Amino acid sequence: MDRLELHPKGASRALIIGTVAYDDIITPYGKGEWLLGGAGSYGALAASYFAPAALVGVVGYDFKKDDLERFRKRGIDIEGIQHNPNEKTFYWKGRYRDDFVGRDTLALDLNAFESFKPVIPEAYKNSQYVMIGAVDPDLQARFIDQLGQAERFIVLDTIDKWVDQKRDQLLEVLKKVSLFLLNDDEVRLLMDDSSTVRAGKRLCEIGPEYVLVKKGEHGLLLFSKQGMFALPAFPVEELRDPTGAGDSFAGAIVGALASMGRRDLPALRKALVYASAVASMTVEGFSCSRLEQLGIDAIQQRYEELLAMTQL
Amino acid sequence: MDRLELHPKGASRALIIGTVAYDDIITPYGKGEWLLGGAGSYGALAASYFAPAALVGVVGYDFKKDDLERFRKRGIDIEGIQHNPNEKTFYWKGRYRDDFVGRDTLALDLNAFESFKPVIPEAYKNSQYVMIGAVDPDLQARFIDQLGQAERFIVLDTIDKWVDQKRDQLLEVLKKVSLFLLNDDEVRLLMDDSSTVRAGKRLCEIGPEYVLVKKGEHGLLLFSKQGMFALPAFPVEELRDPTGAGDSFAGAIVGALASMGRRDLPALRKALVYASAVASMTVEGFSCSRLEQLGIDAIQQRYEELLAMTQL
Repeated sequence: MDRLELHPKGASRALIIGTVAYDDIITPYGKGEWLLGGAGSYGALAASYFAPAALVGVVGYDFKKDDLERFRKRGIDIEGIQHNPNEKTFYWKGRYRDDFVGRDTLALDLNAFESFKPVIPEAYKNSQYVMIGAVDPDLQARFIDQLGQAERFIVLDTIDKWVDQKRDQLLEVLKKVSLFLLNDDEVRLLMDDSSTVRAGKRLCEIGPEYVLVKKGEHGLLLFSKQGMFALPAFPVEELRDPTGAGDSFAGAIVGALASMGRRDLPALRKALVYASAVASMTVEGFSCSRLEQLGIDAIQQRYEELLAMTQL
Repeated sequence: MDRLELHPKGASRALIIGTVAYDDIITPYGKGEWLLGGAGSYGALAASYFAPAALVGVVGYDFKKDDLERFRKRGIDIEGIQHNPNEKTFYWKGRYRDDFVGRDTLALDLNAFESFKPVIPEAYKNSQYVMIGAVDPDLQARFIDQLGQAERFIVLDTIDKWVDQKRDQLLEVLKKVSLFLLNDDEVRLLMDDSSTVRAGKRLCEIGPEYVLVKKGEHGLLLFSKQGMFALPAFPVEELRDPTGAGDSFAGAIVGALASMGRRDLPALRKALVYASAVASMTVEGFSCSRLEQLGIDAIQQRYEELLAMTQL
């Protein structure tokens, strides 16, 4: 399996739509406050290693210039980040339990995100590779409505809250996407089915071209009409902070596909190995500290390690 | 990846040592009584598809001739099954919880197994491919002592009980084996380490050539000094009865290696794909009903399906 050419000349844009946030994170190994976070941030940072990335989101009056600079340093186009002078930035505080068996949300303030009227800049509207983070399905639908009619590959993420509270809207919006991401519990809940495998197959029949069940440290299971694909996660020895693992995974998928300019199943499988490599490195650092400092060589090396340990 | 020639002429013997039992099993989908069970039974049935298999164990006066016949039908040499006229056969009763998230042992009577003095028939002593089921490490050591000094590949299984109660003996016996099988919780408990990955690597340093962490529906993680290997499980749509999954997995590894006459890492990786295929089919039936009726074609087909969904 050939390496991907990262950031090839003329690569398509990876458009990342999602929250830009401040996180307070408590893990068994340490804690931090006012950390750059949010699905949009993790997604854009991850995508930026593969292709030109652009980020759409909103920040409040408390958002630090230094943090905007972190996106710019990674070459991310931030023209699509709105600034709300009257509200604070989206804020999340969470605590991971011992051995990372679960996490508790201690605070969640939508702040500037609550009144967010998404405007996708004209220049982005024909983006072919798009990630939409796990926000309210109604909002996700409004994002999609603004995108042009170009052949596009939309990766959509969700969380259990929306499966539970906005099931119908979610089932509606996911018909418009190419790749739908969710976890074990969520796919069973959404399809009201005790079998993850049967639920994944059924969801694929009624919805998107690809359904991907994220299993964290246990890897992923991809469903498509052409069959299943299973990939183990890279075995991380020392988990530091799982925050953003799924978001950097999603962003890297979009980035990798954009760098290839392809959306077929072999390309997607390759993108998933790259995305798993990136996610495994994200969780080795606190907040997005490691993700932000990955070199292209480090990503290629982890990719090859993951291939070596999964391919016969 | 080539298919394995199953049961090639002149294949080495797969020697399976373990319990032969009667199980009462209750699952969310059904229940059954006096079902043929035990690690030895599942292991030998699985191995028998790959190479000539021989079974060492003990049964009591209540063991049915029809059940011995089931081994013979699969061509399994049962010369090594002792008959205790004074005791009943090893008996286990278990109930799986909803969605198979765990199981409770409702009864466990060692019966004939309690006074079992293992005698490995002379003809088996130079067997090169050996599975030893999850019994008391002291007993496992006595089995190994009876084996000849031939270059041999011993696969050893355990359960949490022995990790907890006979840690030192287990650490001693596993130095004598080639491949040690245990699950996530057990490897962390044994190595007193919160990280499965670090625990697996450390165990590999002090113990057997290969350490394999079984993760059930999430597949497996193999540790060796040559690096890690990860394989997802075949995604089973309808789990019927997980009993014997690990035992048929272990038996199939030994059988597949015996059929190849090899013990190197590439051979082991291939054997693990076959063993995962067999285990995934075992759990699609109740007790060993499906395992016992697998055709060679069905195994080859499942093997190729698993390869197709895991290999790029």
